[in-house]
Amino acid sequence: MPDTQNNTNKPARPFVFINAAMSADGKIATIERKQTRISGSLDFDRMDELRATSDAIMVGIGTMLSDNPSLTVKSKERREKRLASGLPPNPVRIVVDSLARTPVDADIFKKGEGRRIVAVSESAPQEKAAHLAKYAEIITTGEESVDLEELLIELKNRGINRLMVEGGATLNWGLISEGLVDEIYTFIGNIIIGGRSAPTLVDGNGCISEFCRLRLISCEKLEDGIIIKWRVSPSSQAI
Amino acid sequence: MPDTQNNTNKPARPFVFINAAMSADGKIATIERKQTRISGSLDFDRMDELRATSDAIMVGIGTMLSDNPSLTVKSKERREKRLASGLPPNPVRIVVDSLARTPVDADIFKKGEGRRIVAVSESAPQEKAAHLAKYAEIITTGEESVDLEELLIELKNRGINRLMVEGGATLNWGLISEGLVDEIYTFIGNIIIGGRSAPTLVDGNGCISEFCRLRLISCEKLEDGIIIKWRVSPSSQAI
Ligand SMILES: NC(=O)c1ccc[n+]([C@@H]2O[C@H](COP(=O)([O-])OP(=O)(O)OC[C@H]3O[C@@H](n4cnc5c(N)ncnc54)[C@H](OP(=O)(O)O)[C@@H]3O)[C@@H](O)[C@H]2O)c1
Ligand SMILES: NC(=O)c1ccc[n+]([C@@H]2O[C@H](COP(=O)([O-])OP(=O)(O)OC[C@H]3O[C@@H](n4cnc5c(N)ncnc54)[C@H](OP(=O)(O)O)[C@@H]3O)[C@@H](O)[C@H]2O)c1
Repeated sequence: MPDTQNNTNKPARPFVFINAAMSADGKIATIERKQTRISGSLDFDRMDELRATSDAIMVGIGTMLSDNPSLTVKSKERREKRLASGLPPNPVRIVVDSLARTPVDADIFKKGEGRRIVAVSESAPQEKAAHLAKYAEIITTGEESVDLEELLIELKNRGINRLMVEGGATLNWGLISEGLVDEIYTFIGNIIIGGRSAPTLVDGNGCISEFCRLRLISCEKLEDGIIIKWRVSPSSQAI
Repeated sequence: MPDTQNNTNKPARPFVFINAAMSADGKIATIERKQTRISGSLDFDRMDELRATSDAIMVGIGTMLSDNPSLTVKSKERREKRLASGLPPNPVRIVVDSLARTPVDADIFKKGEGRRIVAVSESAPQEKAAHLAKYAEIITTGEESVDLEELLIELKNRGINRLMVEGGATLNWGLISEGLVDEIYTFIGNIIIGGRSAPTLVDGNGCISEFCRLRLISCEKLEDGIIIKWRVSPSSQAI
């Protein structure tokens, strides 16, 4: 796989793709920010295949705290296939968490085998980071928030070539606005969620005039919804 | 066209469809709530055809104040075709505006021929409504906000059978949450807008558990984006 950056002078980072399920009005959860069933079993299976073929899966601390996902590969066959190719059963699971707020009893630590990484910033309380270090590798970048570009370079150094991002809205913005995403896959489900404050695929500060431009790779029906695959245009530099 | 309600005991309302252009992350404008070019000329032409084949076009006062749209049929051929069938060149243009805030120098009054309706509530200051009455028909429903169901029944009584809704986010929510929408057409453009407070296809209070359910009619590529057509499931009553 080619190293995927816009500027070839920059150190290499992994190939990064976002995968998310959204409602027909762009929401990834309700205003209560609770995990919401948007897609069906075929999309779930598609997501599991994406997990199984990635080196690592990343989520933001917002998603960690609201959904407590385990981020494991669900299918036994896929885990066995990974093992047969000399890989651990699950990809590396990564939380982007500036202040080391990830609870040590989170499912990510309790369920499934494999490496975990908590990416913190220099502002993380030292005792919290030290405590988390018993459960996960700790990578420290950035002063107040995690420096995502530095983090990706460090992940590449640690052997991660293909990184799946599973949200949420704020982390997606962080990565997209810094030009660190290569592809975006969205399942659009057949529901309207609505809500002015409900999280959408990409929140954060948002663009005012210079938008992140995409190229349509494909769009096809899946169960009662649609899978859309976009490639981020190489001309879309950091916003 | 069949009368389109879930409950056949209810008085008839028009066939109602929403048409909107959204970014790949569900936004219909930036956080500045300014009109944003999301689609290209083919989608614009598709929208013009939808306008030309509707009896009326409705927007909320939020859209009126931020975009000042004229809501006219742009193609001369389409206007002439309407005239040849005994119709006025433009569909009836309707603003949903509880407090009669529509400016009398709005483009909707200055541009194009045809009827205009401003739908107000009983809370609208009388002198403002009286002033607007020189430029538009006034329909009064609801105490504080416009009662959308009553309004639609009144529109049907005034000969409107096919109503196109052109947003924005809050009016779309009002109509959808009351079970007053039959179809939703979205053009998904190849950009990410982002922004926690940017308007999306459907805002308002949002659903917590009972979602408005849709059935996919079609999805196809158009220029650099996708047109998705949804039918609102008859079982999706008011939320
Ligand atoms: N439908 C789906 O596919 C799907 C998938 C995932 C999540 N979700 C939903 O998304 C919602 C959570 O989204 P969210 O936006 O609240 O949280 P999030 O994106 O999961 O996490 C955001 C947090 O990451 C941390 N972060 C650290 N450095 C960052 C950087 N450079 N850029 C961006 N973020 C950085 C920040 O917290 P700190 O500063 O404290 O580190 C930030 O608040 C939940 O409702 C969840 O259910 C849905
Ligand atoms: N991309 C697109 O296709 C597209 C299309 C249209 C608009 N837009 C964007 O959408 C944004 C405007 O959306 P918006 O949500 O601010 O405003 P909006 O939906 O256009 O108007 C909402 C207003 O309508 C009035 N209203 C009266 N009765 C109502 C009822 N029963 N239910 C709901 N609303 C009722 C309310 O104001 P009162 O109480 O004062 O009456 C409400 O605030 C703008 O940024 C615009 O550019 C984009």
